[in-house]
Amino acid sequence: MKFNIALLAGDGIGPEVINEAVKVSDAIAKKFSHEITWTPALTGACAIDAVGVPYPDETHEICMAADAVLFGAIGHPKYDNDPKATVRPEQGLLLMRKKLGLFANVRPTFTFPSLIDNSPLKRERIEGTDLIFLRELTGGIYFGEKGRKDDGETAYDTCTYTRSEVKRLAKKGFELAMTRSKKLCCVDKANVLETSRLWRETVQEMEKEYPEVTVSYEFVDAVAMRLVQWPNSYDVLITENLFGDILTDEASVISGSMGLMPSASVGEHTSLYEPIHGSYPQATGLDIANPLATVLSAAMMFEDAFGLKEEAAAIRAVVNKSLEQGIVTEDLASKDSKAYKTSEVGDWLVANL
Amino acid sequence: MKFNIALLAGDGIGPEVINEAVKVSDAIAKKFSHEITWTPALTGACAIDAVGVPYPDETHEICMAADAVLFGAIGHPKYDNDPKATVRPEQGLLLMRKKLGLFANVRPTFTFPSLIDNSPLKRERIEGTDLIFLRELTGGIYFGEKGRKDDGETAYDTCTYTRSEVKRLAKKGFELAMTRSKKLCCVDKANVLETSRLWRETVQEMEKEYPEVTVSYEFVDAVAMRLVQWPNSYDVLITENLFGDILTDEASVISGSMGLMPSASVGEHTSLYEPIHGSYPQATGLDIANPLATVLSAAMMFEDAFGLKEEAAAIRAVVNKSLEQGIVTEDLASKDSKAYKTSEVGDWLVANL
Ligand SMILES: CC(C)[C@H](C(=O)O)[C@@H](O)C(=O)O
Ligand SMILES: CC(C)[C@H](C(=O)O)[C@@H](O)C(=O)O
Repeated sequence: MKFNIALLAGDGIGPEVINEAVKVSDAIAKKFSHEITWTPALTGACAIDAVGVPYPDETHEICMAADAVLFGAIGHPKYDNDPKATVRPEQGLLLMRKKLGLFANVRPTFTFPSLIDNSPLKRERIEGTDLIFLRELTGGIYFGEKGRKDDGETAYDTCTYTRSEVKRLAKKGFELAMTRSKKLCCVDKANVLETSRLWRETVQEMEKEYPEVTVSYEFVDAVAMRLVQWPNSYDVLITENLFGDILTDEASVISGSMGLMPSASVGEHTSLYEPIHGSYPQATGLDIANPLATVLSAAMMFEDAFGLKEEAAAIRAVVNKSLEQGIVTEDLASKDSKAYKTSEVGDWLVANL
Repeated sequence: MKFNIALLAGDGIGPEVINEAVKVSDAIAKKFSHEITWTPALTGACAIDAVGVPYPDETHEICMAADAVLFGAIGHPKYDNDPKATVRPEQGLLLMRKKLGLFANVRPTFTFPSLIDNSPLKRERIEGTDLIFLRELTGGIYFGEKGRKDDGETAYDTCTYTRSEVKRLAKKGFELAMTRSKKLCCVDKANVLETSRLWRETVQEMEKEYPEVTVSYEFVDAVAMRLVQWPNSYDVLITENLFGDILTDEASVISGSMGLMPSASVGEHTSLYEPIHGSYPQATGLDIANPLATVLSAAMMFEDAFGLKEEAAAIRAVVNKSLEQGIVTEDLASKDSKAYKTSEVGDWLVANL
């Protein structure tokens, strides 16, 4: 098969981790006789620096024309802590999500047996955790009307959802639950928010179409607690954009494998794969960042975007092997073992595929 | 001294835990020669059942006339999972907060040496944690305009903040930080929300009035992570209503002492003290609920509302003693030790004051 993949390395350590994912993907392509064309494009702070906007039209066209998008990370400290900055790398991310119609962010949290002791949680709490958040990504308060009134003294943000937006996300949730343990948790704040009541009402109506799925409805504050207490009691969770932002990040650290968590954003026009970690500016250029989350994001891409299960399994297997053998970057190296460089981990994966 | 305290027991286990806090408070009053008049009033599901509304005017008048309010918990399962219910116990809570002007919710999270192994976190992660959230409680998306459009197919909620709302909450944060380690964390989502940018801008402007306080600005998703990873790196945190709802609950479970965490809501007209746990409907009437969070809320009331430090210290000391001696309800009892009843714990505290 032939694939055209848009390559958005982004800022900070983005280019370094993307580089290793490309190496591994190319090796897989070779092994299974596929042909990948990578088309690099600018996004984030580097795009602002180069052309003044964080998600240039040219980048958008490249993404639209591609079979999938592989994304690194964006963000640069020079844009932080300046509430009045008018152009920000994050705007590029939001624009990209919106223009590509990436309405569902798929965020798994799972554990690696060899890393379980890295978790801040006790072993018995975290063992067996294998959950997936579906976060709505193109609606809610992120994209509602916002602004100032009264000479700038009053600020407002509007959270809006339509029934059809909830439905298409929930549908993915029900479908995913059907392929797993048939348990779906709808996370909302229906005791306070009207948008949450629309979410709950819509999901309740859909229940009859999926009689085998057991749906629970939980308030976002209760989920924030239970994720820390009994993460392994969850399976598939669906939620709106802002709750998803907070809860998926909370979930990511409980596994102790944050540097390894991949994600996908799927939608109308294409799908995008990216590590959940950020641009880690302090590590830029040092060849120390952990490339495994990006490599595993590439595995998700092979499986979900291209339907290539065997290829994905091969990537996951070699990642597991590298972990077992301690071929890991400094974030995962134990006190008395060697820390490998980003590029060395990538080389090892390619050599051991 | 003479105090008039409004007593809002609420629903579920509320009346049982309130009962023990009253016993302990009365014993303290006797010991230190104060005189407490308790004025009970209805709120929550029991108020809906009795008079049709969750926060009756009569209750409001009792609270306004009181020197402080001691509150149990509200909520009843018959009002859950019904997105179309028009009267809900939670509305009473929100109305009460608004009408009493309780704009700052003070939520400490700390650990008890004897309970540290109850934490889902590893000992080295949680040890030494002693943080306080100040959650804005009468603004934001909880109270903004909300409703439906397009025949009910579109729902919206509006988050609004004014500079003066941010200021009065932040002022409490700075002042609290000055009495502690002079570290303040402002939690927002300024990379996405206009209201968050107003928060950040306002707090940044206030920094010069408190030159000794070191302020950090962190995104809500990052805080949701770091709370699990390094809770003891935080001291005072300020945040808006909805973020506060999620993060304070997350924070409460990390300590392993959730059943013991008190809280205060302070503001314009009076102040209110309540355990952070809910109404725990399944345990209603069983005399098994842990009364210590409510007893410690009464201690906060003595100290903060009445300025009686010694009385507060005496309550805290006897609570500590009960924990050390294992005079605890079933939630804290170890496998092979006796679980005491709610009322037995209260009796023991009174006898050992
Ligand atoms: C950078 C920021 C705008 C973004 C978000 O809030 O969606 C990030 O936190 C994420 O989760 O991808
Ligand atoms: C019951 C609910 C409306 C309330 C809130 O969200 O404020 C509760 O979760 C709390 O934190 O006191």
